[in-house]
Amino acid sequence: MNNEFAAELLERVRKNKPLVHNLTNTVVTNFTANGLLALGASPVMADAVEEAADMAKIASAVVLNIGTLTASKVDAMILAGKAANEAGVPVLFDPVGAGATLYRTESAKRILAEVNVDILRGNAGEIAVLCGQSVQVKGVDGGGNANVRHLAKEAEKMLGVTCVITGAEDVVAGNESFIVRNGDPILTSVTGTGCLLGSVIASFCAVEKNYAKAAASALIFYGVAAERAVETSGPNRPGTFAAAFLNELSLTGREEINQQAKWEEWKQ
Amino acid sequence: MNNEFAAELLERVRKNKPLVHNLTNTVVTNFTANGLLALGASPVMADAVEEAADMAKIASAVVLNIGTLTASKVDAMILAGKAANEAGVPVLFDPVGAGATLYRTESAKRILAEVNVDILRGNAGEIAVLCGQSVQVKGVDGGGNANVRHLAKEAEKMLGVTCVITGAEDVVAGNESFIVRNGDPILTSVTGTGCLLGSVIASFCAVEKNYAKAAASALIFYGVAAERAVETSGPNRPGTFAAAFLNELSLTGREEINQQAKWEEWKQ
Amino acid sequence: MNNEFAAELLERVRKNKPLVHNLTNTVVTNFTANGLLALGASPVMADAVEEAADMAKIASAVVLNIGTLTASKVDAMILAGKAANEAGVPVLFDPVGAGATLYRTESAKRILAEVNVDILRGNAGEIAVLCGQSVQVKGVDGGGNANVRHLAKEAEKMLGVTCVITGAEDVVAGNESFIVRNGDPILTSVTGTGCLLGSVIASFCAVEKNYAKAAASALIFYGVAAERAVETSGPNRPGTFAAAFLNELSLTGREEINQQAKWEEWKQ
Repeated sequence: MNNEFAAELLERVRKNKPLVHNLTNTVVTNFTANGLLALGASPVMADAVEEAADMAKIASAVVLNIGTLTASKVDAMILAGKAANEAGVPVLFDPVGAGATLYRTESAKRILAEVNVDILRGNAGEIAVLCGQSVQVKGVDGGGNANVRHLAKEAEKMLGVTCVITGAEDVVAGNESFIVRNGDPILTSVTGTGCLLGSVIASFCAVEKNYAKAAASALIFYGVAAERAVETSGPNRPGTFAAAFLNELSLTGREEINQQAKWEEWKQ
Repeated sequence: MNNEFAAELLERVRKNKPLVHNLTNTVVTNFTANGLLALGASPVMADAVEEAADMAKIASAVVLNIGTLTASKVDAMILAGKAANEAGVPVLFDPVGAGATLYRTESAKRILAEVNVDILRGNAGEIAVLCGQSVQVKGVDGGGNANVRHLAKEAEKMLGVTCVITGAEDVVAGNESFIVRNGDPILTSVTGTGCLLGSVIASFCAVEKNYAKAAASALIFYGVAAERAVETSGPNRPGTFAAAFLNELSLTGREEINQQAKWEEWKQ
Repeated sequence: MNNEFAAELLERVRKNKPLVHNLTNTVVTNFTANGLLALGASPVMADAVEEAADMAKIASAVVLNIGTLTASKVDAMILAGKAANEAGVPVLFDPVGAGATLYRTESAKRILAEVNVDILRGNAGEIAVLCGQSVQVKGVDGGGNANVRHLAKEAEKMLGVTCVITGAEDVVAGNESFIVRNGDPILTSVTGTGCLLGSVIASFCAVEKNYAKAAASALIFYGVAAERAVETSGPNRPGTFAAAFLNELSLTGREEINQQAKWEEWKQ
């Protein structure tokens, strides 16, 4: 892995315009679709049980996000996930708020049990809950105190996924493992930046079967775009930042990645 | 039809502030409401089967959009559509993604069978599917290769609607027929611009019974606003463009239409 | 009550970051979450009947908003409201569009009957309907002609709530009563500004048990932020205003409140 690999993947996304099927929460649908369009991918949202599987089959990646789950949405996610598995389409799962309520935790575990999740993305608290560790989660943005790298590696082995844990530093644990240090704290002041990140990672996984490298490349791209956006918007201006960030998802390319990428490989 | 007619309709919308009832998808609710408010119309969203018909009766126009359909939403759309038909309220239907899944195609056909749709708005692929032509549709933004003017005329006759097909050039086929060449490609980088266009056309149809002229006027207005917005935001900045476009839906008026309108009448 | 009290409450919100649980409509979820994050509160949205109560118990405030109600969402609101009541968590109810359809009016009355609502926020038309006065409501943004202060006082007594009626001037009627004159008419051109206001009031009530003072403080803060945002964005630019307003929800503090607050106490 090197910066050039990440830049090349980004260009492949922009050239192939993968159809990314998002079964996601009602808070972030608009931002997710706009972020994927800005990146150059092709978003679709279809979370009815009647069509979720049909749409998943023709997609290049499927994203399952339980931010505002209901019984029928969880059913649709499982149908979409299974159809994607059969069709060889990568599945990313974002267990938003796992641990916050019993229903959320159990739904997340049910999805992991019934779908072969390829990439699991969450914060430390959410991932810890799914690994059976007791970590307090406050709301859906809660962090955890566990050793994040160790946790990611444990989730990778226990759940059979490429695991991405985002936080002060982003950790990827898979067939290869990476730390990414791009990004800006203002991302936590705009709702849906974590959810959109999941869809951006899925877009990169749609064009590269080495999911660990694809995820690390997506994290670098996303973090560089955020850093550039905050330079434009200035601090403490989340409204302006959100628009500038969408701009940068469109504008950030090879040169910006080569200049600003901050990451390293790590081994356990 | 002339520019002055379009400008006069816009002023009528702003004066009458028609209540536009949108049964639309979860991705674009916010953008649709903000776009209608910026224009000067009065949006309402109520897609429960228990109240969809009651709201449709008191509305000045009803918009049905299947971007994220569910069984109960389709039922609500049909109830709202029928109530609007009875009350003489114009109904616009946007068959988002028809052709992408069987469920979507069948739901679109069911709506067309049970509701007297006044205005049908879609891209070429969606309209072709509803006319029984086989055109490949990729996701919800897919285009088609059919002869678009011919297709619009066919849909008008076969389905008994004023048909609006948007794309590189926008086509209106009804009791009169128009081509509109305003707009900017960046519209395809912001989700919901097609859906909002449907609601803007409905707003114009709320104040003018000649739906073909109303639709053409709305397309001119919308396209001019987009052109002005991209002048402000610059290219490849979809975040900034989206905000600038909402501004221009508020700012664009008679003078801008007279300066920038690009359209012509056409006959088969 | 004085400006310093309002400023101190704002700082308490930013320090405590209360978890505000929003069961709200699909049009405003994103804007509500972003507004709360900009303010410094911690939003969560979970409106499934399976988890609404569990989330309400761990929240610092609960907001019920029927902008796009369905049968199961109303059930979830009642479960969340009752759980909040038991846990001593303040409940704010926003009866969006009460009076527009029978289903909406009856659902609003059912919520008021089954949940101990602490703060009721609406426009004059909505509140009048809930007090049994017949006032015409057009859509969800409709105003009324009733004497607003009298109406607020009547709602307070009849329904046992702290009542907040927003309009040209904002009225708070509770154990103390206030008029707040901050704000800008452009707020009515951005969807969800009323809904977000409810969530901001709830955030202030999460850190101050005198709900009348908390609501007045929130109204002052919100109005000052709007006034500052429109100075930045200029008139008739709702897209730019929306982003600037989110910025100002983050930037507005003690100094701005002391300079711009416009309010008075009133007695019946």
